Amino acid sequence: LSYLDNFHEFKYTETMSALLKQALHGDVRALSRLISSIESRSANSFKLMPAIYDARKGANYIGITGPPGAGKSTIVDFLIKLMRKEGKKVGVVAIDPSSPFSGGAVLGDRIRMQDHATDPFVFIRSLGSRGSHGGLSRATRDIVYCLDAAGFDWIIIETVGVGQTELDIMELAETTVVILVPEAGDTIQTMKAGLTEIADIFVVNKADRPGADQMSLWLSSMIEMGKTNSKWKTPVILTKGLEGDGMMQLYKKIKEHAKFVAFDKDRRKRRDEIRAIEFIQMCQDTLAQKLNDSIAKNKRITKIIKEVASGKENPYRMIPKVLKYI
Amino acid sequence: LSYLDNFHEFKYTETMSALLKQALHGDVRALSRLISSIESRSANSFKLMPAIYDARKGANYIGITGPPGAGKSTIVDFLIKLMRKEGKKVGVVAIDPSSPFSGGAVLGDRIRMQDHATDPFVFIRSLGSRGSHGGLSRATRDIVYCLDAAGFDWIIIETVGVGQTELDIMELAETTVVILVPEAGDTIQTMKAGLTEIADIFVVNKADRPGADQMSLWLSSMIEMGKTNSKWKTPVILTKGLEGDGMMQLYKKIKEHAKFVAFDKDRRKRRDEIRAIEFIQMCQDTLAQKLNDSIAKNKRITKIIKEVASGKENPYRMIPKVLKYI
Repeated sequence: LSYLDNFHEFKYTETMSALLKQALHGDVRALSRLISSIESRSANSFKLMPAIYDARKGANYIGITGPPGAGKSTIVDFLIKLMRKEGKKVGVVAIDPSSPFSGGAVLGDRIRMQDHATDPFVFIRSLGSRGSHGGLSRATRDIVYCLDAAGFDWIIIETVGVGQTELDIMELAETTVVILVPEAGDTIQTMKAGLTEIADIFVVNKADRPGADQMSLWLSSMIEMGKTNSKWKTPVILTKGLEGDGMMQLYKKIKEHAKFVAFDKDRRKRRDEIRAIEFIQMCQDTLAQKLNDSIAKNKRITKIIKEVASGKENPYRMIPKVLKYI
Repeated sequence: LSYLDNFHEFKYTETMSALLKQALHGDVRALSRLISSIESRSANSFKLMPAIYDARKGANYIGITGPPGAGKSTIVDFLIKLMRKEGKKVGVVAIDPSSPFSGGAVLGDRIRMQDHATDPFVFIRSLGSRGSHGGLSRATRDIVYCLDAAGFDWIIIETVGVGQTELDIMELAETTVVILVPEAGDTIQTMKAGLTEIADIFVVNKADRPGADQMSLWLSSMIEMGKTNSKWKTPVILTKGLEGDGMMQLYKKIKEHAKFVAFDKDRRKRRDEIRAIEFIQMCQDTLAQKLNDSIAKNKRITKIIKEVASGKENPYRMIPKVLKYI
């Protein structure tokens, strides 16, 4: 069923606002349906977003990123267990924008859900590019707010790599954990410039493999070099995901950083900037939505699009003619 | 100077249309400035795009992609040499969306230019996320059209990996070459679902390394499995980039495919679809541009944005209030 939820527009008889009420009262199935509707960027879900935003309860947003094979899921699973031990509710949004053709994310979802299937206070959702109509980072943002409104204390946003989509998504996180492995040299080459700028905490996972100490030293020196005025000292934590070594330390640092950002002046300023950027994006999305609605309804626009498609008309010259009808 | 071109908005005394005229008449410095202006998404360059689009001469657009370290630049350099031997003019747009913080692309640009610095019929430009204000795939498209108008016969679009941005960019290419190396197992895991769908030609580079034959067999079986009705049989070519082995065969296949797409019905249908999608994106971009202009000019919008940024107002609720002013 969760498989179907992802691919088909929500079409139940309950009204959307009734669904929202149920979701906010802890109905996991209602929450799941609501999130599917948000993921598919449905007009109905857009209407609920103001109320969802108001209902947020102040969860901590944690971003976890790193190259494929770094052991992100294992570490996230460990964190979930530690958070649950303290009675906290945990929501996870796992994003893999690199597999636009596959239903891979959904498959992963089903596999990962098994561990926590019986726990109503753990909610895991995987998102791929499919189904979100290119608005993956916006869908993620809306879903995170939805989980916040539903009362989850920790919301973990898990992404692969640091492409532009992932960076957009990571803006949402207040605490970003970058997970690497000792042999991740190649990956780091592509990532390095941005690494220290996004990481609040570094993890060198699979730390029993050769090169872990060098990697740790190298990261520390990179942190030292890129030092800003921030009062936060980015730690480098060695972990062995499968054995759980270093996980308590990681969780402790995450909690420390979550407290830090709540009071740090620079971070709050940055948060305000991000809110402004996000808001402008939302306005852009709404304009794009209006355009799409007009395209669907207006036959004169359809005609212009056909002429551009066939190569008869110059697209750049036709833009003002279409916008006239919006 | 090419370094400066990338980071600063074009501000010369010549009018833009004079610049375009010079660029279309083979003035490489004018072309370079024009492309910098397009890359920075300047309002002036937008105004030139209808004329640039009309001036296109029907170049072949070749996409080359693959993981970091697969040897893309080496292969591209070889292809340039083969194309130049036939008297063809070659434009290269190399895109690395994964390094949004670094000036890496520009550095690469300067290094790679050296080889062809004295050849006015080879034009290489590297693009990073920086400077294109998030519109990397749109900037690439406009730049490719500009190179086409300037009379380059072959336009090579080189990207890293297959994230969403790269896939958007690859839509532009009529022939897509995917370059892998024998040990690229990990990369393939993340790429595999999309691989056969985007590749018109596979290259296994560094074919003297162990595993090249297995990789080649595996790709062939993947092609066989994913077989569509297309009349094109996706070849798998073994190359050794540094020695040049297989390069002639690759170039031959590229030429074959370029001929194929020109006459294949399915491919032309797909091209029409892509034109329609691109056009709708252009309209969206123009709307976004209008929004940005309004934000810059309208103080009531500025006030709303400030209230949203500080957390005082609900962004979702404020969207219609801003759009009222557009």
